[in-house]
Amino acid sequence: MIRKIEHLGIAVKSIEKSDDILSKLLGSEAYKKEAVDSENVITSFFMLGETKVELLEATSDDSAIAKFIEKRGEGIHHIALDVVGIEDELERLKSLGFQLIHEKPKAGADGKKIAFLHPKSTNGILVELCEDV
Amino acid sequence: MIRKIEHLGIAVKSIEKSDDILSKLLGSEAYKKEAVDSENVITSFFMLGETKVELLEATSDDSAIAKFIEKRGEGIHHIALDVVGIEDELERLKSLGFQLIHEKPKAGADGKKIAFLHPKSTNGILVELCEDV
Repeated sequence: MIRKIEHLGIAVKSIEKSDDILSKLLGSEAYKKEAVDSENVITSFFMLGETKVELLEATSDDSAIAKFIEKRGEGIHHIALDVVGIEDELERLKSLGFQLIHEKPKAGADGKKIAFLHPKSTNGILVELCEDV
Repeated sequence: MIRKIEHLGIAVKSIEKSDDILSKLLGSEAYKKEAVDSENVITSFFMLGETKVELLEATSDDSAIAKFIEKRGEGIHHIALDVVGIEDELERLKSLGFQLIHEKPKAGADGKKIAFLHPKSTNGILVELCEDV
């Protein structure tokens, strides 16, 4: 079951500059900064109602974020949906014809289980499913 | 004051096809369909926690949605933030250096007051402020 938007991931060139923009826009400071070495990114998180905004800066030209910015510029990179029962949800979506990037959930930041759907099957939107462990 | 994400606007080529995709993805049907003649779009709304997802299909080549899709393809078009005191919020953001597309709020769908910020000043993200009247 899908419950809410867990976070919006925003690809940025400079997390320092974008932290400043977001804190001015939202009127609140980032509550967490975290390096995710496996994805070659540094991140910064803001609360916005029940949803988080995650800024992502690439630390390597190989990272998906660097490639996204090269192709499309800065902007919204993905939507993460908070789900209950991620394995069942992946089964359900696969049976409905969605293309899964990850057939099984993998370990993500924040101690979550995560899996991505291919944007080709979701109207050009990169969708992440995530569940608290 | 900014309270939450009111909705995410998604630019789509065919609202009929995308309605089907979204209802499968979210496991729930659109609760409303509405034509917004002033913007040359037809729309469809889904609930997702405290946030709505708004699908937008252009009804004219002049519409901002048609131009967006021509340039970037289908995908997330804008984030709408639910605010209290939209006039004060626009003043606050302008004084902080954000570029306003609308200096004063205008009438939007759903009986709301709305105003857009220019994506140049918001990390490539088209941001809408909206307030219930």
